[in-house]
Amino acid sequence: MTKKSPLAPLKFPELPPVPGVEIAGAACGLKVSGRPDLFIARLAPGTTIAGAFTRSLCPSGPVDWCRKILPKGKARAIIVNSGNANAFTGKAGDRTVEHTVKRAAKLIGCPQNEVYIASTGVIGVPVPPDHIADKLPGMLKLLAEDNWPAAANAILTTDTFPKGSVRSARIGDTEVTLTGIAKGSGMIAPDMATMLGFLFTDAKIPSDVLQGLLTRAVDDSFNATTVDGDTSTSDTVLLCATGAGARHPKITSAGDTHLADFKRALAEVTRDLAIQIVRDGEGAQKLITIDVTGATSRQAARKIGLAIANSPLVKTAAAGGDPNWGRLVMAVGKAGQKADRDLLSISIGGVPVTENGQLRSDYDETAAEAHMAGSEVHFGVDIGLGKGRARVWTCDLTHGYITINADYRT
Amino acid sequence: MTKKSPLAPLKFPELPPVPGVEIAGAACGLKVSGRPDLFIARLAPGTTIAGAFTRSLCPSGPVDWCRKILPKGKARAIIVNSGNANAFTGKAGDRTVEHTVKRAAKLIGCPQNEVYIASTGVIGVPVPPDHIADKLPGMLKLLAEDNWPAAANAILTTDTFPKGSVRSARIGDTEVTLTGIAKGSGMIAPDMATMLGFLFTDAKIPSDVLQGLLTRAVDDSFNATTVDGDTSTSDTVLLCATGAGARHPKITSAGDTHLADFKRALAEVTRDLAIQIVRDGEGAQKLITIDVTGATSRQAARKIGLAIANSPLVKTAAAGGDPNWGRLVMAVGKAGQKADRDLLSISIGGVPVTENGQLRSDYDETAAEAHMAGSEVHFGVDIGLGKGRARVWTCDLTHGYITINADYRT
Repeated sequence: MTKKSPLAPLKFPELPPVPGVEIAGAACGLKVSGRPDLFIARLAPGTTIAGAFTRSLCPSGPVDWCRKILPKGKARAIIVNSGNANAFTGKAGDRTVEHTVKRAAKLIGCPQNEVYIASTGVIGVPVPPDHIADKLPGMLKLLAEDNWPAAANAILTTDTFPKGSVRSARIGDTEVTLTGIAKGSGMIAPDMATMLGFLFTDAKIPSDVLQGLLTRAVDDSFNATTVDGDTSTSDTVLLCATGAGARHPKITSAGDTHLADFKRALAEVTRDLAIQIVRDGEGAQKLITIDVTGATSRQAARKIGLAIANSPLVKTAAAGGDPNWGRLVMAVGKAGQKADRDLLSISIGGVPVTENGQLRSDYDETAAEAHMAGSEVHFGVDIGLGKGRARVWTCDLTHGYITINADYRT
Repeated sequence: MTKKSPLAPLKFPELPPVPGVEIAGAACGLKVSGRPDLFIARLAPGTTIAGAFTRSLCPSGPVDWCRKILPKGKARAIIVNSGNANAFTGKAGDRTVEHTVKRAAKLIGCPQNEVYIASTGVIGVPVPPDHIADKLPGMLKLLAEDNWPAAANAILTTDTFPKGSVRSARIGDTEVTLTGIAKGSGMIAPDMATMLGFLFTDAKIPSDVLQGLLTRAVDDSFNATTVDGDTSTSDTVLLCATGAGARHPKITSAGDTHLADFKRALAEVTRDLAIQIVRDGEGAQKLITIDVTGATSRQAARKIGLAIANSPLVKTAAAGGDPNWGRLVMAVGKAGQKADRDLLSISIGGVPVTENGQLRSDYDETAAEAHMAGSEVHFGVDIGLGKGRARVWTCDLTHGYITINADYRT
């Protein structure tokens, strides 16, 4: 693991047990470095599941498998390895997935279509069929309710710190827990470049309702972040609801008012994990938050925000602590969304910069520079045309990114 | 000017006079550095013109002006300054353009809508109305037919070498000349991020025909290159035909067979200039050529090629000399165009890497690594689905890019 990101949280959060979820993480020899590389979760019977996956048109075998079984909406196990993405490994890669699933289903005593797989790491290196399956009996012995730190560490690749988040929520009078772990540091962009996220709750929620909640939450969190605009073959977010600890009112639709607080918790956990991933962006020295307002629609605002967030010139200006608002104008112009130079208003760290298509006469460059010198940067862009708004997150583009990615494979 | 790109041509080409074109380049104090910053061209009466401009929705005042007068199709002067883009300078910026045009038209003795303006440099810093206009009388005295090196130097910003290209072409039995100069180094992407190109010929071609020829040539050259995926507010390519030296058959349509050799020359000059810009990509150490074949259409092939060319992970792998074909697969997957993992074939420097969705058993990694160690890298990607093909060019992403762009404005 390289030096911890300067934007890392002070410590990994205390993650309490989630009734119905047992987890384990360990080093099984899939990483040459000998670091932890296998995470498994065993879920109580009756657990429902929702998923969101990469939009890559060349997805990995594990992603294909998860997509295939997701319509059933039930899960008893999740098996995740790091160190090898089992992507672009052809039919042999698919067979390794099948073999792992078969062994896990037998050991746990469940149908094969309740076993989920995710893999992250190097692309294109074959994984022998037994490589993961042979480790399962040993991993099952390690299962415990409080293994979150080991689990969060086992899914990392170029990450410099493990990522976890927890919230409680009330459904009716019952308190439930929502806990998540995630990984990701490079190849991060909508939709969900090399990022994995696994969320668990003891609430009892039907899979179709759970899917609706997850899709919306992912859209406003993981899909609103970008590190480098590259999209992985392997992105996977799974949300499991065991129902084990819940005696709350029965939930039958995503519109149920009893779900309001759970939605809040889900939004917070997914946003927290997504921002942790950006904070661990390869080479990141600054967290950049971009608020776009006044666009013609929410989608337009999102596209403008991501055009800014993915601009190498904006990201290098941030790295240099330079309040280079001209590059923000450039990025708005290239987003392909409706904009009018003379209606555009830009602010940096709350300092108003432009109005009427030019620099304000009272622009306080010293204040903007002081803001840019910090580790958290805020850009506000008002398009002045409508009511569409979006918030996106990214990090700066530094020498560290080049160093990490010019040497990763070798 | 920073250290010359290692990919620069050995020397600036010999550019002969183009009958009907007089040019001048000089230092007029628009750049703080005192380097050359103003280029003007005076064109013979009757000169026709075609243009291609940035697709930015926040274009600069000069771009707005050129777009406005282009339908007339006539030009007597081109005035280009570097050091200040006169972009996002509001109504005041527009007035500076108008003032410059008015003075130039009076001095040259032509209508205002035959005076073209282009500006490149820092965004958002006002240009006083007289700043350029006051320099025009002095510049007119410098006009000469053989001032190409001075002209090419006066339009540079972060470029490390001047860019020029020339070809002769036969139209009927008459030989005509086509000469071009260009600038660009960063903020380079379709469509034509901070790049300027000025092409001149003594052929006699009506403006509507000229426009058709230019649009096609730009599409296969400047618009097929990318340095950082960022799109400038100011991109401009102008092609002027003076008719001064031409006694060739009359041209009335772009389909005229007499134009075949001229089209070849135009394709060569635009491609030559576009590749020179990529060779001067900020921080570039390697020129990368990407051939996409077997896509469902030419447009699909182009999009896949640009997804590869704009991927920071592909570009950093190239910088590291790493034949990381997994990142090529990733980029194909994120391009949003039809692709099938198991039909994809990748080659690096002519070395076949993958087939049937996995690494070939005979893959010669040593040969691929040897190729990647050189300064010209070739990626071949066959999608295996159709007949669409495209070639695009880019450069690697290095520490030099970060250094240049984290410090540009300050």
